[in-house]
Amino acid sequence: MQPIRYVLVGLGNLGRRFCEVIVEKAPLLRERYDLELALVGAADSRGAAYDANGLDPARVAAIKQAGGSVADYPGAGRAGWGALALVQAAEADVLLEASPVNLAQGAEPGLSCIRAAMRKGMHVVTPNKGPLVVAYRELHDLAKANGVQLRFDGTVAGGLPAINLGARDLRGAVVRRIEAVPNLVTGYVMDLLADGVAWDEALARARDEGVLEGDGSWDLEGWDAAAKLVILTNAVANFPATLDDVQRDGITGVDVAVLTAARQQGQLYRLLARAERQPGGDYALSVIPTPLPLDHPLGRLGSKQMGVVYTTDIYGVITAIIDEPDPIPSAMSMLRDLLDIYVESVLQ
Amino acid sequence: MQPIRYVLVGLGNLGRRFCEVIVEKAPLLRERYDLELALVGAADSRGAAYDANGLDPARVAAIKQAGGSVADYPGAGRAGWGALALVQAAEADVLLEASPVNLAQGAEPGLSCIRAAMRKGMHVVTPNKGPLVVAYRELHDLAKANGVQLRFDGTVAGGLPAINLGARDLRGAVVRRIEAVPNLVTGYVMDLLADGVAWDEALARARDEGVLEGDGSWDLEGWDAAAKLVILTNAVANFPATLDDVQRDGITGVDVAVLTAARQQGQLYRLLARAERQPGGDYALSVIPTPLPLDHPLGRLGSKQMGVVYTTDIYGVITAIIDEPDPIPSAMSMLRDLLDIYVESVLQ
Repeated sequence: MQPIRYVLVGLGNLGRRFCEVIVEKAPLLRERYDLELALVGAADSRGAAYDANGLDPARVAAIKQAGGSVADYPGAGRAGWGALALVQAAEADVLLEASPVNLAQGAEPGLSCIRAAMRKGMHVVTPNKGPLVVAYRELHDLAKANGVQLRFDGTVAGGLPAINLGARDLRGAVVRRIEAVPNLVTGYVMDLLADGVAWDEALARARDEGVLEGDGSWDLEGWDAAAKLVILTNAVANFPATLDDVQRDGITGVDVAVLTAARQQGQLYRLLARAERQPGGDYALSVIPTPLPLDHPLGRLGSKQMGVVYTTDIYGVITAIIDEPDPIPSAMSMLRDLLDIYVESVLQ
Repeated sequence: MQPIRYVLVGLGNLGRRFCEVIVEKAPLLRERYDLELALVGAADSRGAAYDANGLDPARVAAIKQAGGSVADYPGAGRAGWGALALVQAAEADVLLEASPVNLAQGAEPGLSCIRAAMRKGMHVVTPNKGPLVVAYRELHDLAKANGVQLRFDGTVAGGLPAINLGARDLRGAVVRRIEAVPNLVTGYVMDLLADGVAWDEALARARDEGVLEGDGSWDLEGWDAAAKLVILTNAVANFPATLDDVQRDGITGVDVAVLTAARQQGQLYRLLARAERQPGGDYALSVIPTPLPLDHPLGRLGSKQMGVVYTTDIYGVITAIIDEPDPIPSAMSMLRDLLDIYVESVLQ
């Protein structure tokens, strides 16, 4: 039995759900992979907890569910203890960095935690787009220099293994085009607008459904899709794109009459993220509300579905779609990455 | 630069295409992965060729394209030299076993070649379903015992990484259901029948298009789909299914009136391969012509598309589809597997 000690930073929607599910998965992980996961540290915005003998993920989840902080964890929690200090102090094998995207503050504290963990020889798994958008190449090189793995399959299209599929299964190919609908909110809102629902009402419903968070500008102005496209283009096409390279148009200015007309012609409007290989080998990146005809591989996405299409020279056109009615697949992308680090063989 | 010596058994549609494309890919493989592939041996049904310094894949492809045998390869070819003898004699790192499915003869010569290669410490990559259907568990154990890898992503749904996606990216999940349309011919023929084309004419067109081979019974009676389902269920659900476990119904007895009626209701008929998890943890396997409604994840497949749907407990419902207008993606699945063996990191 191989023990794996992990630290979890960020206990919001993804971190808390991970704690809930991982408890149920313990017997399967032991039996199928001979792995014993131990949560030794956890941090949220108000504090952190550490116990080398292991915290109970179910208890952490319950504290968060009740509106508390992990700082309240009996005997192990400390109010005001920062995530970075926890990572620096912890003896652990892996960091799961699940704090929310925070580009306004330089992707902190996620970025510093990831750097610190890798310098200590810890592997890193993160569904947080911020650090990768800000410092893709630096973090990639740092992982290599420290002989650790940096995995981030959950950054794009939730629980869809879009990055794994693109980076691993397209090896040897020239990727001619990446098309993705990696964001749920924008499609959900445009579907409602086309139904005749007013803008404010559509946003309110998205908020009620839990698909819209904060002031919404990150999603609605296309930043979320652009960030995901940047990560996809780096990881799958190995092209060093940045946010500045993305021609970006969100859905805040979208014309409802255009959406309605498209609907009547059987087209689906989605905020399409696209990277197109240019003759010189560079990629042109755009995020634009786009009418998708029915016969487009993403032309029949439901409002809780995301997808990606890779057009390649030698592997045909490969489409992958996820139906993700709740955030559990997004949260569990961290388990996928973690198992991919520790389970050697592809086959059981 | 890491040199990789490989032996290619089988120079039909897949083996020959592989030879054609691999020549063009040499610079990319060197630059991107620091790998130098060398074809040191090749065999077809009439003979074999071996040169420790390397054969020219383009020349092998040209000989086959002209209707010849690799036994004619100048200086290295020998008529009547069998594939197994070649594998036993060759000094090489990997066997690419691409001979056609041959269940009638115990999946030979593929099965013996694979066994011999693994016993010599060679990795094996194969898109040949036969050996895996006949001896999945034995080959799996043999690979483990010899410390080599056995990879077969190309056995299911051509160039779609259906197995990689299922076996790797669903780790940690309980797979509740596998649904696949892994065979092109049956969908192509049923589409024509629904168009009003007569059976014989539909088969003739499938043959002209190159999607139907031999007497067709392997595809039309559902054996091909059943074999792929058996492999999927073993590799993805880790359940030891065999061909005998598959409730199998091909398309030879399909009622054209039923196809036409389904078409009028907007449904797509496909030979659906399905493995459904039962309460006790076993899987029930079936291959049955099935009407797929438009909102089924595979309900809008084109006649040159194949797909798979995984319904899981923690990763939602994941669908993957390939548009494969020619056999190149199927052939190049061997490159995908080969690179996955030799390229360590997921990211470049």
